[in-house]
Formats: sequence, structure tokens, C-alpha cells
Amino acid sequence: MYQELKQRVLDANLSLPKYGLVTFTWGNVSEIDRELGVFAIKPSGIDYEVMTVNDIVVLDLEGNQIEGQRSPSSDTPTHLELYRQFRDIGGIVHTHSRHATIWSQAGLDLPALGTTHADYFYGDIPCTRQLTNQEIAEEYERNTGRVIIECFSQRQLDPAAIPGVLAKGHAPFCWGKNAENAVHNAVVMEEVAAMALHTQHLNETVTFPQSLSDKHYLRKHGKDAYYGQKD
Amino acid sequence: MYQELKQRVLDANLSLPKYGLVTFTWGNVSEIDRELGVFAIKPSGIDYEVMTVNDIVVLDLEGNQIEGQRSPSSDTPTHLELYRQFRDIGGIVHTHSRHATIWSQAGLDLPALGTTHADYFYGDIPCTRQLTNQEIAEEYERNTGRVIIECFSQRQLDPAAIPGVLAKGHAPFCWGKNAENAVHNAVVMEEVAAMALHTQHLNETVTFPQSLSDKHYLRKHGKDAYYGQKD
Amino acid sequence: MYQELKQRVLDANLSLPKYGLVTFTWGNVSEIDRELGVFAIKPSGIDYEVMTVNDIVVLDLEGNQIEGQRSPSSDTPTHLELYRQFRDIGGIVHTHSRHATIWSQAGLDLPALGTTHADYFYGDIPCTRQLTNQEIAEEYERNTGRVIIECFSQRQLDPAAIPGVLAKGHAPFCWGKNAENAVHNAVVMEEVAAMALHTQHLNETVTFPQSLSDKHYLRKHGKDAYYGQKD
Amino acid sequence: MYQELKQRVLDANLSLPKYGLVTFTWGNVSEIDRELGVFAIKPSGIDYEVMTVNDIVVLDLEGNQIEGQRSPSSDTPTHLELYRQFRDIGGIVHTHSRHATIWSQAGLDLPALGTTHADYFYGDIPCTRQLTNQEIAEEYERNTGRVIIECFSQRQLDPAAIPGVLAKGHAPFCWGKNAENAVHNAVVMEEVAAMALHTQHLNETVTFPQSLSDKHYLRKHGKDAYYGQKD
Repeated sequence: MYQELKQRVLDANLSLPKYGLVTFTWGNVSEIDRELGVFAIKPSGIDYEVMTVNDIVVLDLEGNQIEGQRSPSSDTPTHLELYRQFRDIGGIVHTHSRHATIWSQAGLDLPALGTTHADYFYGDIPCTRQLTNQEIAEEYERNTGRVIIECFSQRQLDPAAIPGVLAKGHAPFCWGKNAENAVHNAVVMEEVAAMALHTQHLNETVTFPQSLSDKHYLRKHGKDAYYGQKD
Repeated sequence: MYQELKQRVLDANLSLPKYGLVTFTWGNVSEIDRELGVFAIKPSGIDYEVMTVNDIVVLDLEGNQIEGQRSPSSDTPTHLELYRQFRDIGGIVHTHSRHATIWSQAGLDLPALGTTHADYFYGDIPCTRQLTNQEIAEEYERNTGRVIIECFSQRQLDPAAIPGVLAKGHAPFCWGKNAENAVHNAVVMEEVAAMALHTQHLNETVTFPQSLSDKHYLRKHGKDAYYGQKD
Repeated sequence: MYQELKQRVLDANLSLPKYGLVTFTWGNVSEIDRELGVFAIKPSGIDYEVMTVNDIVVLDLEGNQIEGQRSPSSDTPTHLELYRQFRDIGGIVHTHSRHATIWSQAGLDLPALGTTHADYFYGDIPCTRQLTNQEIAEEYERNTGRVIIECFSQRQLDPAAIPGVLAKGHAPFCWGKNAENAVHNAVVMEEVAAMALHTQHLNETVTFPQSLSDKHYLRKHGKDAYYGQKD
Repeated sequence: MYQELKQRVLDANLSLPKYGLVTFTWGNVSEIDRELGVFAIKPSGIDYEVMTVNDIVVLDLEGNQIEGQRSPSSDTPTHLELYRQFRDIGGIVHTHSRHATIWSQAGLDLPALGTTHADYFYGDIPCTRQLTNQEIAEEYERNTGRVIIECFSQRQLDPAAIPGVLAKGHAPFCWGKNAENAVHNAVVMEEVAAMALHTQHLNETVTFPQSLSDKHYLRKHGKDAYYGQKD
């Protein structure tokens, strides 16, 4: 019944090693079907080389498993929390890609320092606060999602305009309109994370004008976007 | 009619991922036929995997599209401006290659620190000034070209001797005698950008003698060049 | 007689170049069969391209060669010493992988700075003391093992929870339940070594909470582990 | 007549892109036949993809071309000078490999900081002085060789024990018993150059004991060497 959804989720998961975003099985992608109220996600700890569409797990928005024999990714409660609160996102990806993870570990926002960033992320990519010991001990994965949502809420950020976050001490989560788009944004975040790292080494005081961020983001994403082919 | 020109432009665009200069579609190459007064350029936002010669767009030097159904690269006005003012260049490439982009984001000239640089670029590769908010808001892409030209004009630089520039807060543009040669120069700029970054980490005060820059540039490019095979 | 053991050791050695952990023959993997009291190890200085199962050498725990015509890896006495003292490990790998070696050369513990590290190593990865001139001059390879054991003993570290070490001025050793698992841990150490290097560049004072280390290590390795598939 | 020599030189040149040591044609390898008093070297500016054994040029030790239609590498006078003065070397390679070039550009000796270095280079790899303007203007390539020889002579270094050098502001030269061995040493130098760069970032005051350098160099290269297979 969910064959196409599961196939898209499988394809998106298999694209992670292709893009160099994962070591071993350190990543997971999911996609939601909002009409049916279900999402599909990677199973936990299965090698990409042997993963098939039947290994993909389908859950409802209460977290009940409704298709698949495998245990879902241990990060499933994070995905679920994000789907519940960020109502317009359609896909989520979590990786430990090297440079984005470096920013997560440093506990710093990934600053917008150029048009490469501005083409996809409308402003700095936030780094969450550290979870409390209590939040870690109980419902850790779900609290990871809650702290992301708190971060966007407190800073009044739009998850559609900033499709990703750095979980402090951990690693990035990205999202998008579907699984494939979420992976696309994860590739971008990894690249701009590498660029920003070395940009700051060269020039610690560099800034990036808001007007250029506006221009690049809006020429690709605003109502008057003119990048790409008109359909 | 422009089949050979378009094929060369297609080939040069497809060489960008081969050389590791682009992520997704973040690059565009064009080539001009000065006799016919036209240039061919990559379409906007088409994946390299599916791009064919029929997707390549041909425009005249007023910017009118004269062949091809696709929308041209959104950076087309920058290419056009450069072709109009830099009369001896035959091909242009724009990428967001990692290390050159880092220097653009840092807003710093890429210093000539060794013979690898001197073999291709006769002096530091300049970083433009930041565009004003007004220049960003109106005719952004054309103004990107104008600011590059202003940079070369004010510093009295020869675009034939320094076949590339860093657009501040953005990314590099390179050029050459044709599309293939422009890409060649982009590969070099990316490599020397990586080398210079770490050279300055090791030794902030290092300098490179003008005499060695002269020697290496002129043994490859001057009238008495003796590098390569005599034809 | 030891064909399966030797095949596993061959496979694990051949996986080193696949994972980008070695240049030329700069690595060696062994696996022990505790019931039979023997271990198999890579021969010294044989190219991976031509190595076959017959090149693998089998020794007993006195260091006597009991199968194979080749000379064993010159690091064999280090492996032997570790197998004798770390009674629960089943495989050992030594590489000069770039980033782990950088930490060895710097003579610094590789700090736990994120969950990627915590998923596999329960705390900082220690760097041994430098061997004395005497220890270098006599039984160098065996003393390399002794200094590793001394390091774990003095700091009261559990080799099962921290499956690797940095030999000062030299390079990493990793271990695991078998040869393949040891290589797996070596891949992880290389990745977290790269991440930690740049994390400290960005933020020298960053710390990582013990509670998060506990959570990540124990969700994968403790008795209540819930990562991966239930068998 | 020189077919085998030329074939080995071709193979060694073609191994440069395989090892990631060159961009485009930025490298050249030669090998000498001391009995016949000739050496073979790569032609200048020929793509590796199309190079054949017939493109390899043979010269005598006066620099006279005695076989081949191509112009030899523009760096030929440097090779010639080294073969004349370093009587025991059999092959030479010049590249602009990234990390070794970074040290050349920084004008700093590449310090011995670990056993990876000590396995192949018995002490720091020296960086030459800068050539004078006069030395650059006249017989530049030959003077590049002379300054390398001066460097080894003044510091009383043995080219057999330190098979490579950093030409200041330029890039590395390596040598060995033949062309293949020279390339081998160039791979090692590139790797230890990358390691040393980041080791010093982590710990500026790190040192490496002479006793460990002795041990590692001599266990592979001394008369009592015990690394590798006994022939």
C-alpha cells in the first residue's frame, strides 16, 4: 500500500553514501504522507548495501508501526516530533556529515557567509541548546526534537526558510518538501559548513549583507523566483 | 547552426563535476563566437546528468535568446557584461568551488604565494568590492559583472594575465580563450586557493618574489615561452 | 586448518585501503582464536593488491610461527602483547590513518566532543606516554604494547569500552571483538579524529556532557541497548 | 634501445594521477641508466591520458637529446643537475602535490613529527633558500638544482637518507633508487606534509625523539633492517 512512499525513502537513504554524507549506517531519512497520516523511515542499523524496500518501516503519527518487520531508526521519535510541529515539511534527514557535525560539536550557529548558503538557507543555521541531563535520561530522542522546535520557536525562525538545524554536541538534521529534497539540503549544509569553517580562519570579522542574502534566497525561492526552468 | 559551439559549451559544463568543481548545478560555462556575435551558455537549473546539447542556449550580445527553448543560466547577464568589456576572452566559467569560494567569502585577494599560481595567474587574484544594496536590488547579475570590470579597471589589471576574479561574498568567475580553457583556469584557481589558505596558516608573513612570478608566468605565456611542445 | 581465520584476516586487511585508512602497506590487522590459542596476522611489506590467504601468517601466543612462509608484520609483538593482556579482545588493527595519526603526533588525547565519538568510544581516547630511549632500543614493538597496557591500567580504562589508543609520536591501534570489528572501530576513530581537530579550531573551550556520552554509548552497547535490529 | 627505461619512466609518470599527486600535467618523473650514461624523462606539457612510450625523451648527461621527437620537460635541467651531483640516486620526481607545496610556499622545513615520516625520511625535509633574482633570470631550472645541492651540502645531509626536498616558493622534488621508488617517496612526503601541518595546529611545541627516528628508519633501511620479507 505504501510502496511508492517506501521506495522514495529507500532511494533517499541510498543517496546518502553516494553524496559522501555517511560513514557506515550513520544516517536516516524519512518522508511523510500527510493525507494518509503516515511516514516511512529507515530501519535501525541495517547496512545500505543490503537494504531493500521491504526493510523500510511505516509508522503513523502516534508512533505506531503499521508496516514492516524491522525496528525503525532509533531516531524515529525525533522525526515524529518534527513532523508534528513543523506542519509544512515532507521529509527529514539526519546524518553525521563531517563539517556540519563539527559545527554541532562546537556548539555554534553556522553563520551565513556567502551566496552558497543564501541560495538555500535564509540566515544563520541555528545550533540548539544542550539538552539537560533529565532530557537526555528520559525520552532522549523525542526531546532532541522538542529542543529543535523550541530553538525555532524562541528565535522566531521559519523551518521552511531555514531547512536544517545543528543539534548541539550531536549532528545536523535537515528537512525539505520530501525525502529527496531533505537530502539535497543536507548536501548543501555540509558544503557551506566546510566553507564557513575556513572562511572564519581567514577572516574572523567577515560579515555578509542582508541584502545579498535576500537577493539570493528570493531569486530561487520567493514568489518572483527566476532561477531554474519555468514549468 | 551553432552546433559545434553548443557542443563545446556542453562538454565544458559536463567537465565541471568531473573536476570536482561543482555540487549539483552550481556552475555554468559559456563560450562566445566573436565573429558571429553570439555566445552559448548552460540552461538554468538543469541536472548535468540529463543535460544535452539541445538544452544549451544561444544569445546575442544584446542578451536576446536566438536559439534554445530553455531559460539561460540566471548568471547570464554577468557573462554578457564580461564578454562586452573584456574583448579578448572567449569563454567564462562560474562555480562555487570550495576553496576559491572561501576566499570570496573572506573578502580577501587570493595572494600569489608560489609558482603553481604564477604558472597561470600573473599576480594576486583580486576580490571585488561588495555590491551596494542598490546594485543588489536592481540588475544584480549585470552589476556583478560591472563590479568585476571596475575592479580590473581601477587596479589596472589585465584580464588576459589574471584570468579570474573572486566576487566578494559570492564565488569565483574565471575566463580563458574558450570554454575549455576557462574551466582549466577554474581548476587551477581552486587548487591554488587551497594551497594559499594553508600556506598562510603555516607562515603569515610569507612573500613571493616578483622575479619568480615573472619567470614562471613568462616561461609558459610570454613570447619566449618554452613550456610545452613547439607546434 | 586455520583457513577461515586466515580468510577473515585477509578480508579485514584488504578492507583497509577500501576505507581509505592506509597508504601503501601501512597497516596490519590480526584476529585471535582464543580456543586454539593462535592468531593470524598480515605478512610484512606485501602489497595489498597481490596478497592472498596463503600469505597470512599464524602464530601461537608465545610468538612461534606455526603456519605460513612469510615473515609476519613487524608489529606482531605489539599485537601479541595486547592479546595477552586484553583478554576480551578478538581482533587488532594498526594503521597510520591521517587524522588519528595527527593526534598521535601531537601527543594529545583525542577528546570526546560529540555523539559520533560516544557511539563507539566511552570517553576520551588516550594517547600513551613516549617510550623511553631504552624501550625504543630494545624490544621496541613489544614495548609499544606494554606502554599501551600501562596507559589503560594507570588510567583505569576498560579496553572494551575504549577500543583504541594513540601511540605517542606514532599512530593509532584499535581493537574489537574480531578483525572486522577492529577495522570498524578504526574507521570511526579516523572520522572522530578529523571532527575533533576542527571542532577545537572553532571552539577551544567546548565540552561534552557525561550524560550524553552515557546515553549514546549505552543505547548502542549497554545491556538495555536499543540501537539496531533485535536478533 | 632504451625501450625498458622509457617504459618504466612512462609507468612512473602515469602513476602520478593515480596517486593524486598531480593536477593536469603538473609533474614529471625521470630515471637514469648510469651504465649507459642516459636518462629518460617525461615530455613537456603532454596530457597523461594520451602519453605513450614514444613520447618519452632520452638525454645524455650533457643534456643532449638522443632519442624522442618531443621537447623534454622544462624542468629537465633540474633533474640533470641532481643526477650529476647525487651519484647514488636513480630516479627523480617533481610534483606540485598540495600539502608538500604548502610547506614549500611557506618556506619552512617539513619537520619530522612521527614514525610515518621516520620510516622514509631520516630527519626534517629541508626547504631550500629562495633563488636570487639573478639565479631566476639565468638558467633558472639548472639553478633550482644547484640550490638543492647547496642546501644538502651546507647542512651536510645525505640524499639517500632524506630522499626529497622542498624548493622554496615552488614545490617538492623527490628521488629514489629508480623512477618508481622516487614516486613512492613523493606519495610519502605528501602524506607526512598533510599530517605535520595539522599536528602543529594542535600542538605547536611538539617534538619527536631522535631515538624513535633512528628506530623506525633503521628497522626499514639499515643493515639490520627487519621490515618486509627476506629475499
